[in-house]
Amino acid sequence: MLTGIFPPLPTPFTQDGALDLDALRANVEQLNPIGLSGYLALGSNSEAVHVTPEEASHVYATVCQAAAPGKVVIGGTGQFSTHATIEMTKRAADAGCAAALIVTPFYYKNSMTAEALRAHYHAVADVSPIPVMIYNVPANTGFTIAPNIIADIAQHPNVIGLKDSAGDINQLAEAVRLTRRKHSERSEAESTPGGPPPHSGGYGQSAQQTSTTASLRSSSAQAANEFAVFSGNYGAMLPGLTFGIVGAILAVANIAPAECVQIFSLFKQGQIEAAGELHLRLLPVARAVTSQFGVPGLKAAMSMLGYRGGWPRLPLLPLGAGPQAELEKILREAKLL
Amino acid sequence: MLTGIFPPLPTPFTQDGALDLDALRANVEQLNPIGLSGYLALGSNSEAVHVTPEEASHVYATVCQAAAPGKVVIGGTGQFSTHATIEMTKRAADAGCAAALIVTPFYYKNSMTAEALRAHYHAVADVSPIPVMIYNVPANTGFTIAPNIIADIAQHPNVIGLKDSAGDINQLAEAVRLTRRKHSERSEAESTPGGPPPHSGGYGQSAQQTSTTASLRSSSAQAANEFAVFSGNYGAMLPGLTFGIVGAILAVANIAPAECVQIFSLFKQGQIEAAGELHLRLLPVARAVTSQFGVPGLKAAMSMLGYRGGWPRLPLLPLGAGPQAELEKILREAKLL
Amino acid sequence: MLTGIFPPLPTPFTQDGALDLDALRANVEQLNPIGLSGYLALGSNSEAVHVTPEEASHVYATVCQAAAPGKVVIGGTGQFSTHATIEMTKRAADAGCAAALIVTPFYYKNSMTAEALRAHYHAVADVSPIPVMIYNVPANTGFTIAPNIIADIAQHPNVIGLKDSAGDINQLAEAVRLTRRKHSERSEAESTPGGPPPHSGGYGQSAQQTSTTASLRSSSAQAANEFAVFSGNYGAMLPGLTFGIVGAILAVANIAPAECVQIFSLFKQGQIEAAGELHLRLLPVARAVTSQFGVPGLKAAMSMLGYRGGWPRLPLLPLGAGPQAELEKILREAKLL
Amino acid sequence: MLTGIFPPLPTPFTQDGALDLDALRANVEQLNPIGLSGYLALGSNSEAVHVTPEEASHVYATVCQAAAPGKVVIGGTGQFSTHATIEMTKRAADAGCAAALIVTPFYYKNSMTAEALRAHYHAVADVSPIPVMIYNVPANTGFTIAPNIIADIAQHPNVIGLKDSAGDINQLAEAVRLTRRKHSERSEAESTPGGPPPHSGGYGQSAQQTSTTASLRSSSAQAANEFAVFSGNYGAMLPGLTFGIVGAILAVANIAPAECVQIFSLFKQGQIEAAGELHLRLLPVARAVTSQFGVPGLKAAMSMLGYRGGWPRLPLLPLGAGPQAELEKILREAKLL
Repeated sequence: MLTGIFPPLPTPFTQDGALDLDALRANVEQLNPIGLSGYLALGSNSEAVHVTPEEASHVYATVCQAAAPGKVVIGGTGQFSTHATIEMTKRAADAGCAAALIVTPFYYKNSMTAEALRAHYHAVADVSPIPVMIYNVPANTGFTIAPNIIADIAQHPNVIGLKDSAGDINQLAEAVRLTRRKHSERSEAESTPGGPPPHSGGYGQSAQQTSTTASLRSSSAQAANEFAVFSGNYGAMLPGLTFGIVGAILAVANIAPAECVQIFSLFKQGQIEAAGELHLRLLPVARAVTSQFGVPGLKAAMSMLGYRGGWPRLPLLPLGAGPQAELEKILREAKLL
Repeated sequence: MLTGIFPPLPTPFTQDGALDLDALRANVEQLNPIGLSGYLALGSNSEAVHVTPEEASHVYATVCQAAAPGKVVIGGTGQFSTHATIEMTKRAADAGCAAALIVTPFYYKNSMTAEALRAHYHAVADVSPIPVMIYNVPANTGFTIAPNIIADIAQHPNVIGLKDSAGDINQLAEAVRLTRRKHSERSEAESTPGGPPPHSGGYGQSAQQTSTTASLRSSSAQAANEFAVFSGNYGAMLPGLTFGIVGAILAVANIAPAECVQIFSLFKQGQIEAAGELHLRLLPVARAVTSQFGVPGLKAAMSMLGYRGGWPRLPLLPLGAGPQAELEKILREAKLL
Repeated sequence: MLTGIFPPLPTPFTQDGALDLDALRANVEQLNPIGLSGYLALGSNSEAVHVTPEEASHVYATVCQAAAPGKVVIGGTGQFSTHATIEMTKRAADAGCAAALIVTPFYYKNSMTAEALRAHYHAVADVSPIPVMIYNVPANTGFTIAPNIIADIAQHPNVIGLKDSAGDINQLAEAVRLTRRKHSERSEAESTPGGPPPHSGGYGQSAQQTSTTASLRSSSAQAANEFAVFSGNYGAMLPGLTFGIVGAILAVANIAPAECVQIFSLFKQGQIEAAGELHLRLLPVARAVTSQFGVPGLKAAMSMLGYRGGWPRLPLLPLGAGPQAELEKILREAKLL
Repeated sequence: MLTGIFPPLPTPFTQDGALDLDALRANVEQLNPIGLSGYLALGSNSEAVHVTPEEASHVYATVCQAAAPGKVVIGGTGQFSTHATIEMTKRAADAGCAAALIVTPFYYKNSMTAEALRAHYHAVADVSPIPVMIYNVPANTGFTIAPNIIADIAQHPNVIGLKDSAGDINQLAEAVRLTRRKHSERSEAESTPGGPPPHSGGYGQSAQQTSTTASLRSSSAQAANEFAVFSGNYGAMLPGLTFGIVGAILAVANIAPAECVQIFSLFKQGQIEAAGELHLRLLPVARAVTSQFGVPGLKAAMSMLGYRGGWPRLPLLPLGAGPQAELEKILREAKLL
């Protein structure tokens, strides 16, 4: 079962724009000893939209190879068309990723109805060799997927979770509430002996499970009932744990991995007040490496903290001197520097 | 010190639009035995904008008189102009309210700069006989007040808290974080012997504390440091408790007061999972009586549950038959009916 | 028939917050010789929300008395409750206003359904002694009224026009398109001999037409068919004339009245290119006295240009020195100074 | 000089998702006799995001070959990374496109500062063999580029125009106003004998002009001063002509090409009232094939009107039966069917 803290790994580039897989590997190795549950390769913070399909395969493989045993590697694979998403998902599976995180298609926002979104996710889930997670990130996509649509898509047996980066605490709770119910219902439906598979059609071949991903499809009935809701927004992680989210996938987990893991652990141990203190302390840092300074800020912070952030690709510009100074101040005030 | 759960009491009207103070009194008396900390008279859910100043005085007085001993009555007093807000605040104080909740002025949203908002709140706080709370409610006002502006305003010694109905869990945490720090700083500043009062000028007379409100201005140094952050959004209450909000002022507390109090208590007792279960159960109810069906929905729900909701005033229309049936279903599913 | 350019007159206040009717009268007298069609008393730019009902009556009366013969005076009368709106509309009528401009009720935005808005406007129109206009101003209200709802409300015979300040050129055109059709249909319906009046009920007494307002209810069949769509947004005026809006009610018409009238005239004379040049020249000025610097900017600009802008009431702050300098530069570049 | 009406050609696909170049060619040939100025290949309405780079080359080439002599073919070439945008722009140039329309990069909206956008566009313009146009389409990108940033980018000699699909009439006018001024200034700067080129550096090779695109870089000094502002929003076309936009690139021009051309011509002939009538008549059609029913609606309308719309690619779903009926009704009411 998926749970815990995952950093969405930035993809380091050299100054002339080349993919720097060594730096990526070094970052993973440096993160391995900390109690992170795994890694997200090619999420929003990874500049997934700035790499070619071939480069993507290299990134997936590098992370899977560098990750310590027991770490779960999720691959971000969403593309604009359903067909391209399937192709990319197969690349992630081939490289050894245990699950695929698929951003909502977002160019034709007005056309992304419940029906279209279900068709998209189910077409991918039908043929994906690895389980699929829904990814909601309005700051990048410009629209949000409603909890009832998430719950509808979640009925597919190969759709196992959600990363919600919207940070809307009401929508997040509603996603938890509705996917709990939906999955309970599904579980009953599935127990019908001789029943037909609930989904069919779509883009061709049936799903093939690889051995790598077996750990995510537990044989226990209990696990089958669970739909894993992750926060992709730092500010909603600790608060969301009160109503049942299972973890978080956070940019800030690249630069304060131990602290993120600690908030999670303190909560699990019932030390809420201590968790809350830490939550407030990291708040400005989490904002700095997301909404405030973006991916260039995250890469700069990594470099300040001994990781290999590298350069962003154009049109992202490296962080300027002014923001660099501001960022450093924020890191110091949070006692990370 | 302010803490706990407060319902913003709807103001009952008769079918022909008259103020129904008997119904209001009856509701307060029915709520008195439950563990609520007090009441908000004339908030957004009370149709404060639909009553005249004279009617407002009657509402404040009725609630203050009907409230059981020990209950704290907060009066909503915000108006468009600073002058009218001061006049209304004095009405609330005269009627016995312990604090005034003042919505951000919102007609000239673009002109509501940090400077203008500070001038407004400080002008009111300078002369208000009772402590003042900031009220942020974007669903009604169409804009949100930034945490750093809140923290700036909060440095005034007669500004003691915030009701944040935006439900943005990041902004709420930032408000907690910044008002903690600010108040610590202020506390040091205030300890300077012989120092001048930090605020002066404004709309005339100096503030006079009445005996009623004494309980809100504790003599202990610790309490003086606290700025009380309340959630006005149900979905942010339990989550917000993890990082230090002190309570909530919630429409749903009118119809599920015991459950709201129970979530708060369970959290305080460390029974987070039970609190989370209850949180999810009430979620659709809280939505039904706010964003989904509004004040007419809240009044209808009260009537269904044995309170005297009464009629709304035009342009609010009573809930139609279809929504009534939907609302009833939601109440049943949450086991309130 | 309503047509042409109207300035929404700012309400001058003295430094200590008193209503300055002399200044208001002086401004009207100064504007009288220019080819404006009339005046709006107590619109958004007039700080209508900052005056008491008694002060409102004085403002209406002052403008009506100071206006040159033939000028049409419209009174802004919208309040939060339907009842208060009716009371204020009667004040405007009593003072001699020819029509009432009624902002959409906006505190309970989510409850402002088509049904609620129709009920509100029709209840007012049923009893108003003067014709009623719909006022859409999202920058202040935080929501927009859809064209199809406008068209529905427009079927009431005492609802004669719209001021749309949203500046959405598609919605504005749709409002023109739908109110043309609706009114043609209504006209046919009304010609049925002996037919019952299309509206009834509501808040009591039947509408009484005063002699003052007779000019707005033309006896000609053609005029009865017209619904007058005005732009309340400078940038949409000249563009909107291409598809049939009849005029504009503009903050900038207080400080560049001759230029606004000239754009309108040039368009009517087919000199579109010259109109377009003037349109672009005034664009930064129109922005400066609305979204950029607000009412304080408008008042400051009036003072710079020889009118009596006076002070705003708190929470509006007078324009600071920096913005004053910027504003002056904008006026100079547009050759108004 | 670019001017007039351009349809953004939908890219027809077969039911099994294959690119249908025959259908595309047939559509162009059917449109050739009408007075359109040219075509946009691979804009938003063309599902540009759903084709591979190789397919894109085929689409560009097909349209260039099928277009009648004198028609200007613009290729949409914007990608997420600057590097990929340059690659795609070269494909368009190689295929014979006369200009490249480049959507604002939009995944990292918060990082798309003036500096980043300028760097992106100038890097492309520096090396593009064909002139570049800025493309602002918030409905798809989720953010809007400010007029002052457009004007800044427009100073590059190889950036020749704007397609603005936002439909904000104030921003559109501001873009016209600022690019007029900027270009006048630039023109002066450029006349300096022996002066250095204003831009340098970036992604390598210098721009090479092909003979095909020569017509867009007029030798006359006057034309060199012009920056061509097009509306990509139907509702802003006729209105925008009043202040100097030069044409429009419109989805509806695929299904009502003659009518769109007629509105443009009527305006140029001074027959504004007739243009306005036609404007209102097409308004619901333009909405139907954009915000209301999207690309599937546009393709369905084409099929209804004798063009070869074909199928959309997933996640876009073909228009359902209900919307089909609604769309047909709209086409009939506008007298297109």
